[in-house]
Amino acid sequence: MKLSSRRRFLGNVAWAVPFATSMKPNTIFAQKKGMFIHHVYFWLKNSGNKEDRAKLIEGLKKLSKVKTIKNFYIGQAAGTRRDVIDSSYDISWLLFFDSAADQDSYQTDPIHLKFIEECSPLWTRVVVYDTIDAAT
Amino acid sequence: MKLSSRRRFLGNVAWAVPFATSMKPNTIFAQKKGMFIHHVYFWLKNSGNKEDRAKLIEGLKKLSKVKTIKNFYIGQAAGTRRDVIDSSYDISWLLFFDSAADQDSYQTDPIHLKFIEECSPLWTRVVVYDTIDAAT
Repeated sequence: MKLSSRRRFLGNVAWAVPFATSMKPNTIFAQKKGMFIHHVYFWLKNSGNKEDRAKLIEGLKKLSKVKTIKNFYIGQAAGTRRDVIDSSYDISWLLFFDSAADQDSYQTDPIHLKFIEECSPLWTRVVVYDTIDAAT
Repeated sequence: MKLSSRRRFLGNVAWAVPFATSMKPNTIFAQKKGMFIHHVYFWLKNSGNKEDRAKLIEGLKKLSKVKTIKNFYIGQAAGTRRDVIDSSYDISWLLFFDSAADQDSYQTDPIHLKFIEECSPLWTRVVVYDTIDAAT
């Protein structure tokens, strides 16, 4: 990590401190007003097909280059099984944005449009949950 | 932030560096093998009732004290509306754990059991998505 990046990283600590009630020891992020969380679950047409799965993951890695994305996480269903758990999806895509406007911008970003064009034939179902702060 | 906390915080940067492809400038977390993401969506019995909503948020704040929780975020549906978006839930509860074992431990933590006892009368539906790394 370059010094300039480290300075920006430490810059995040500064805004995190006022939200002391939301902070945990060794925290990686803090509840922050304005932050926008976009969580997408994909069900593949050919669920269990390793090539299609790899194509979607590769597409998401390219998609992660959209500049307004603060952080992303490419996931798959964990091995947990309870009545309330939906573990039927193939891939999850968790995004953090600094604002709702940044997420709006992501929706029409050329990289996003290209991702949809290239990868949408892979999936049969998508469910999105968009979330903003409710606790500060 | 105390120096000891800062040291732990910077400790996170050290493990983040090897996952350079997953890092964004000014990042707040990085894709990490073993990390466990637990995202819960609650639908209140009395959706729109401010008191019930406040009770659930208060309950989640208490629940956040469970020691194995790395980070949490208490959210509500954003104003976005598209066919693929489910914005019908009232509250979301996003948790990061360092491992699947930490999440297992959370499920049976006395604080969690007390939360379920006190707050479950408030909701009519819960959907959980448990996610582990798919991209490293």
